[in-house]
Amino acid sequence: MQRNPVAKLLLFGATGDLAQRMLLPSLYNLHADGLLAPGLTITGSARSDLDDAGYRKFAREALDHYLPDDRKQAKTIASFLDRLSYQPADLSDEKTYQPLADKVGDVSGGLAIFLSTAPSLFEPAVKGLAAVGLAGDTVRIGLEKPLGYDLASSREINDTVARVFPEDRIFRIDHYLGKETVQNILALRFGNSFFEPVWNARGIDNVQITVAETVGLEDRASYYDGAGALRDMVANHMLQLVALIAMEPPARFDTSAIRDEKAKVFRSLRQMKPEEVPHNTVIGQYLGGAVNGAIVKGYDEELGRDSNTETFVAVKAHVDNWRWQGVPFYLRTGKRMTARRSEIAIQFKPVPHSMFAGRGGLLQPNMLIIRLQPEEYIQLLVMAKEPGLDRDGIRLREVPLNLSLDAEFAGTRRRIAYERLLLDLIEGDQTLFVRRDEVEAQWTWIDAIRAGWTANDMKPKHYPAGTWGPSAAIALTERDGVTWQDD
Amino acid sequence: MQRNPVAKLLLFGATGDLAQRMLLPSLYNLHADGLLAPGLTITGSARSDLDDAGYRKFAREALDHYLPDDRKQAKTIASFLDRLSYQPADLSDEKTYQPLADKVGDVSGGLAIFLSTAPSLFEPAVKGLAAVGLAGDTVRIGLEKPLGYDLASSREINDTVARVFPEDRIFRIDHYLGKETVQNILALRFGNSFFEPVWNARGIDNVQITVAETVGLEDRASYYDGAGALRDMVANHMLQLVALIAMEPPARFDTSAIRDEKAKVFRSLRQMKPEEVPHNTVIGQYLGGAVNGAIVKGYDEELGRDSNTETFVAVKAHVDNWRWQGVPFYLRTGKRMTARRSEIAIQFKPVPHSMFAGRGGLLQPNMLIIRLQPEEYIQLLVMAKEPGLDRDGIRLREVPLNLSLDAEFAGTRRRIAYERLLLDLIEGDQTLFVRRDEVEAQWTWIDAIRAGWTANDMKPKHYPAGTWGPSAAIALTERDGVTWQDD
Repeated sequence: MQRNPVAKLLLFGATGDLAQRMLLPSLYNLHADGLLAPGLTITGSARSDLDDAGYRKFAREALDHYLPDDRKQAKTIASFLDRLSYQPADLSDEKTYQPLADKVGDVSGGLAIFLSTAPSLFEPAVKGLAAVGLAGDTVRIGLEKPLGYDLASSREINDTVARVFPEDRIFRIDHYLGKETVQNILALRFGNSFFEPVWNARGIDNVQITVAETVGLEDRASYYDGAGALRDMVANHMLQLVALIAMEPPARFDTSAIRDEKAKVFRSLRQMKPEEVPHNTVIGQYLGGAVNGAIVKGYDEELGRDSNTETFVAVKAHVDNWRWQGVPFYLRTGKRMTARRSEIAIQFKPVPHSMFAGRGGLLQPNMLIIRLQPEEYIQLLVMAKEPGLDRDGIRLREVPLNLSLDAEFAGTRRRIAYERLLLDLIEGDQTLFVRRDEVEAQWTWIDAIRAGWTANDMKPKHYPAGTWGPSAAIALTERDGVTWQDD
Repeated sequence: MQRNPVAKLLLFGATGDLAQRMLLPSLYNLHADGLLAPGLTITGSARSDLDDAGYRKFAREALDHYLPDDRKQAKTIASFLDRLSYQPADLSDEKTYQPLADKVGDVSGGLAIFLSTAPSLFEPAVKGLAAVGLAGDTVRIGLEKPLGYDLASSREINDTVARVFPEDRIFRIDHYLGKETVQNILALRFGNSFFEPVWNARGIDNVQITVAETVGLEDRASYYDGAGALRDMVANHMLQLVALIAMEPPARFDTSAIRDEKAKVFRSLRQMKPEEVPHNTVIGQYLGGAVNGAIVKGYDEELGRDSNTETFVAVKAHVDNWRWQGVPFYLRTGKRMTARRSEIAIQFKPVPHSMFAGRGGLLQPNMLIIRLQPEEYIQLLVMAKEPGLDRDGIRLREVPLNLSLDAEFAGTRRRIAYERLLLDLIEGDQTLFVRRDEVEAQWTWIDAIRAGWTANDMKPKHYPAGTWGPSAAIALTERDGVTWQDD
């Protein structure tokens, strides 16, 4: 794939939380590793009334706070800060754009814009950028979520942006796609002959995806209470994991081939009728409880008012195609859960016949576990013989075949997901970004679930903080004879 | 399976090397672990003119020498020695048997005989035992190799024994079948749904079995120079490994079901025509060289005369049935090799199409490694993404999914293979013993190879001690585009 690096980066939301915690440290890391062209300049922009020096000071403090100590080299930080400049901007004010264009200057060498802002500002932003020549052929734009809250609003945003930028210059960010372990799913599935023959409804019994957080609302109340767990986590991140697990083999590792296959999965998601939703989804909201040994408040109390927003959701999904017929994909995500964990657990079918029946104990079905957080590892659970002189056959026990990515690649720094995504934005590789048809197929499926909640007047079931969610979420899989992988 | 323990054990060859190193320590361990009935008595017998006290002294010295220190409990050793008695015997002398029968006494509670002796003594031994009532319905016999040196001699021995003992009371020992990891092959294959779908010619490219020793002749010159590597290692041990890897799933974990399936594999081994033998086998003999940092002599020098006996053999075998059509089984075994290692390496087919071509580096085919010696582990080699921000795709690297049986079951003592086999002999479970039809089908195949060597006047190629054998053994697989798994 031909890469085509830009000469300039324009960062909106440059003083925000994401910029401090993720974007500036990521750009610094790329810089420190020599992955940014020497001439690349970075212009920050936000409402704050800073000048270049002020923004460099801001950036230095962010790096100081968020970089690990062994990454802080004074000379490298200084040369990184030299790339930075700043231009205040109020995106809702059309007079803000000309000074911005003047500051950025010539974009004939290419400009990448990173837009992390409220969706209401998308329209004035792209219009304003276009008006001052910051949306031409040499300009690409990265969009940070939320990209709408349902199909209609997502279409509106996409239409707005599309009036100015063609699809091949729009980079929709889902930071999960920047994670090493997520990309590893592709490597595992398509770099090995071993998995593919069992990677289907004949070999796989069910797929479980868990994204559990221990945190509560943090400072995201205004966004989160309007979104809820389904739209915050399932719509973006978890469905991408479903797609990578479920997709057919792309012919090539290239942008279209991979995104085509993912889009096919999203379009194959079985749409729920309203009356099917109560049976296939569970929503919850946390009460007070204890997480990691500390007493924490309930959601309503944290929020300061009563709310029906779900802080937990579990969904039994189906991918309706030949490969996956009859294989449930169980998804669950929540805040204030027992442990922080992102994990894919693929449970294989039981053996068709046990030759050990009565002579070897119970056989557990094989399971492939891909742990994304907090550690990164891959584990294949198999039955092996327990050593010993059992007289009535051979005793089997579940044991793990382990691949610790942390250990295997020890000494390799674990990169921030945004490093990969910012580099690809700067260099113009869309493979790990989300295409419009992917987003819209996802929303179609999500909207049907939400319509079912409304139609059935479903309210979140309460669960104590520090648990795995409401007991109905346990029942969701146990009804099918499946137990959530919880260890 | 109903177990039917005997009350008495009669051990021929009771002062031999096998008894000292393996049998007495194994019986002691069974005793120490409470696996022997309190009343079980053990009568040793050999040419040496010892009395009970003399044999107990002999046994105590053997235990002292060969048991690890943490197994030596004075009280337990004393109670074990209490089980022992001794009767001198010259098996070629028919007058030896009545005193033996008198010493053993009543066998109505069951007697298990362990016969470890020169094949020339099998006939007088079973005749003599029968003559004095030590071969009745309550008596079973364990036979230690060598059970012949070709099909004809093996039939002769089997016929001789069969005149006195029916097949269901004959226990032919192959100590490889007593090894935990060997039994684990059954557990892995048939206790997991994951392996079976790829466990065939569609999924597997080739199977490699290596049994490499670093030792030379030791004190086995008289036996070994007459046998050679093919008959010493391939005929007994390695073909059992082939059978466990290649067999169809037995319906039940029981004696007949498992041995039926193994026998089918032996009967499916592709017989070589004499003219095919030079192309499919390599024989070698070690010269002087260095092993583990010490200078060692060549085979002829060690033996004290010139010999054409092979101390190394490599064979490309085929199992001619539906499952294995076209899958080579490469076997190699030798003395004075680079490292001591027994290992099965199952190489899977390459991916049918690489989506990473040109963008992810070379894909290595998956490999499952079952290491039997010196460590015990199972390793699945897979391709995973190497962490990093490669611009031209994703870089893959071979990494191991590991199951260290030593570590997983740490704290569990690693048992001597003979513990399992002696216990099964005492209790009457034939599952891990070799049936007559298995032995004879093996010899048929082995004899064809030896006939080819003779017909083509093949002589061993010399290889320096401390190497992986003659270079022709490398060529044997490389001609097929396969590389021996050597790490």
